[in-house]
Amino acid sequence: MMNIKEISEKIMKGDFSSLLSFGNGNKKVHPTEVAQMLGSVPIDTALHAFDSLAATTQTQVFPYLDFVIQKQIIHEATKTSGTFILNELSSDDRIAFYSALKGVERSAFLELLNEKNKDGVQDILGYPDNSVARLINTEFATISMEITIAEAIEHLRKNHKDTETANVIYVLDQDGKLIDDIPIRRLVLNAPAKKVADILDGTCVSLKMTDTKDDAVAKFKAYDRVVLPVINTDNVLLGVLTVDDVLDAAEQRYTKEMQNFGGVEGLDYPYVKTTFFALIKKRATWLIVLFIGEMFTATAMGYFDAEISKAVVLALFVPLIISSGGNSGSQAATLVIRAMSLKELGIKDWWFVMRREILSGLTLGVILGAIGFIRIAIWQSLHLYNYGIHWFLLALTIFFSLIGIVMWGTLSGSMIPIVLKKLKIDPATSSAPLVATLVDVTGLVIYFSIAAIILKGTIL
Amino acid sequence: MMNIKEISEKIMKGDFSSLLSFGNGNKKVHPTEVAQMLGSVPIDTALHAFDSLAATTQTQVFPYLDFVIQKQIIHEATKTSGTFILNELSSDDRIAFYSALKGVERSAFLELLNEKNKDGVQDILGYPDNSVARLINTEFATISMEITIAEAIEHLRKNHKDTETANVIYVLDQDGKLIDDIPIRRLVLNAPAKKVADILDGTCVSLKMTDTKDDAVAKFKAYDRVVLPVINTDNVLLGVLTVDDVLDAAEQRYTKEMQNFGGVEGLDYPYVKTTFFALIKKRATWLIVLFIGEMFTATAMGYFDAEISKAVVLALFVPLIISSGGNSGSQAATLVIRAMSLKELGIKDWWFVMRREILSGLTLGVILGAIGFIRIAIWQSLHLYNYGIHWFLLALTIFFSLIGIVMWGTLSGSMIPIVLKKLKIDPATSSAPLVATLVDVTGLVIYFSIAAIILKGTIL
Repeated sequence: MMNIKEISEKIMKGDFSSLLSFGNGNKKVHPTEVAQMLGSVPIDTALHAFDSLAATTQTQVFPYLDFVIQKQIIHEATKTSGTFILNELSSDDRIAFYSALKGVERSAFLELLNEKNKDGVQDILGYPDNSVARLINTEFATISMEITIAEAIEHLRKNHKDTETANVIYVLDQDGKLIDDIPIRRLVLNAPAKKVADILDGTCVSLKMTDTKDDAVAKFKAYDRVVLPVINTDNVLLGVLTVDDVLDAAEQRYTKEMQNFGGVEGLDYPYVKTTFFALIKKRATWLIVLFIGEMFTATAMGYFDAEISKAVVLALFVPLIISSGGNSGSQAATLVIRAMSLKELGIKDWWFVMRREILSGLTLGVILGAIGFIRIAIWQSLHLYNYGIHWFLLALTIFFSLIGIVMWGTLSGSMIPIVLKKLKIDPATSSAPLVATLVDVTGLVIYFSIAAIILKGTIL
Repeated sequence: MMNIKEISEKIMKGDFSSLLSFGNGNKKVHPTEVAQMLGSVPIDTALHAFDSLAATTQTQVFPYLDFVIQKQIIHEATKTSGTFILNELSSDDRIAFYSALKGVERSAFLELLNEKNKDGVQDILGYPDNSVARLINTEFATISMEITIAEAIEHLRKNHKDTETANVIYVLDQDGKLIDDIPIRRLVLNAPAKKVADILDGTCVSLKMTDTKDDAVAKFKAYDRVVLPVINTDNVLLGVLTVDDVLDAAEQRYTKEMQNFGGVEGLDYPYVKTTFFALIKKRATWLIVLFIGEMFTATAMGYFDAEISKAVVLALFVPLIISSGGNSGSQAATLVIRAMSLKELGIKDWWFVMRREILSGLTLGVILGAIGFIRIAIWQSLHLYNYGIHWFLLALTIFFSLIGIVMWGTLSGSMIPIVLKKLKIDPATSSAPLVATLVDVTGLVIYFSIAAIILKGTIL
């Protein structure tokens, strides 16, 4: 068995036959492995190598390729070949490809589809990007409940291809409405003379076309299913959703959530495949917004410049104070965003979260405040730094400021995601840096105000 | 159909029969719905309600309950009932329960298992926490390749229960070694007289017991499978892994990743179920570590107190400068952590990442630096703030400091996850706050050093 590097060298030299010798040694090569191989060579070579494959292999490999390569293949293919590939794809893979296309290209490529597939794709593209509809497979196996298991098996054998969509069979009434689903194993494990009606268990769980991908993830998790039927509002079966597509959707969603949280716009392609300028664009926007927000810290500190010049020592603690607010805010935001994403928390729980976070902020603030106080006392008594004769009042200022700022950070961090959700904005957009920026500006005001109260008449 | 609230009120009044009227209206209630119901009432009520269920319903509902309730049920149950439940669970649910138990409790509860199940559980618990072994189901259906499909169906009908593990059948040789897997649909869709050997496709993908859960997620995604066989080093089939368990594992892993990234230790239970003090403990540890790290900012600024008292204006820009480093570091860390988690990047790619991030940092630094410069120029010329006659040199200091700090932030944020991975620590531990803290301290040194060079002889 050759490794990726050896094969990729052969392919670069034009020996495309080695593509199919890749994979599980002496066993048959899996389409995903061919796709992986094609992804590891320059795109021109990949296009030539793809060209050399048999037409049926091409349609098997196509769904596993990166979108960038997929698009290039259809662009460069003859009209016959492009038409063949796009019409032969399974309906969910076809939708995925057209979903990723934009504008003119989408319209141009739609012309390659036959009438039935074109109608199907256009219909699905009418549903929102994050709806379950965008992931469904419209090929599925159906039977009626009046027939026997033997008849059902006979029917399936005649009418269905051996694809993953035949793992679960749907029982419909004469109007196409969904009655129940049966895993195909149940046809095997029961006596052939039994009626289909006798092996229904009445626990059919379904999704609606307009349900979000998040709803789908939650339902798959709750019911431990591998495939779920998707119905319209009249309970008519329109398609099926397999869990592998949901796993992909869940992972894409995490990635976007985490990138937003870290202060980057969600990338369209993987980090390594994103071009330098696309990456800069995704990062610069937020970085500039945050920078402009953070400029208010200079304004805020400008108001206190008289205090700072009287007591430079106050300036020394600015980074410590504001970062504590940012860190505790980042913690609270993380916890709340993840809990909302897992549907453990909703908007209606805001009061529960607020009470809890105020109390957490108070506790954590007292802990940090005490450490800050002790730090100053130790440095002063060991003569590591001279904070002046009023060091005790300064330490007290730090103590109370930390309590105030940690409480404020915790509260902002926990409430911003809830407010964003209420405004129908993705809560993860309240990225750690956004919370930190907000807390920095207000934190300075809290700090210098407390300092003004405690130190008035002594060092201020 | 009653809603959750109505039923929960009935249950609180002791009307446990309503438990089974919950769910899909007139259809049969699904165990997950009963579990959901029990999770929404106080734990004492839940225990009583669970008690009122038939023994077989109890074993169906048990796997869907929260671990806290599961543990309580076994504690309070009679020995007979506890023994029945734990032995009747499917092997993966049994493992999940014992995996979550600790120390003495685990040993005590192990005594409730029969010899076979006890050996099975103890064997699996010998594998690491994050290994595939911890998720496998040891019940699976096997056939030999010499028999016909009709014989295979007959064999399965006699020997297998109607559970999800019968969706895919494994073909073994006489030594129990795995030859291939067949989705059960293929027995239905092919002529009964065919030999099993004739319907094998030779593309069997498998996992090893010691593979990590992350490996499993990657394989399920790459091959679009719903169940994968798990073998030992001799290719002997030991269990099967279903994708629903992998979906759970992926979600848990992601939640932990995000919580670590946000500066919180991974929670053991959902946010809403974690007690106040457990939550404080998970947050305080990191918050204190970061606080102590951040104390070096006070030390660093202490070295520059002479400069600050000469030019208070320098202090005004401290929060702006250090937060820009933190934000750009947080962006870089997010991108690299997620890309490593998706296996798009590895340790060996450090040089690619470093080159790219230095260049990104330079570009982003120039953008922010320019904005900072313009901000000072505008404020000065519009008399919004008076930065003194040397405002141009100050603006230049801010410009170069931002370039230096954003480059440093980007570099630290991208390299820390890679270094942690190399040290075999979870890269997500390089939480946004950790990067920010590191950048804050070093950023101050960069800022004041650049200021010293540019402003020497004028305002310093």
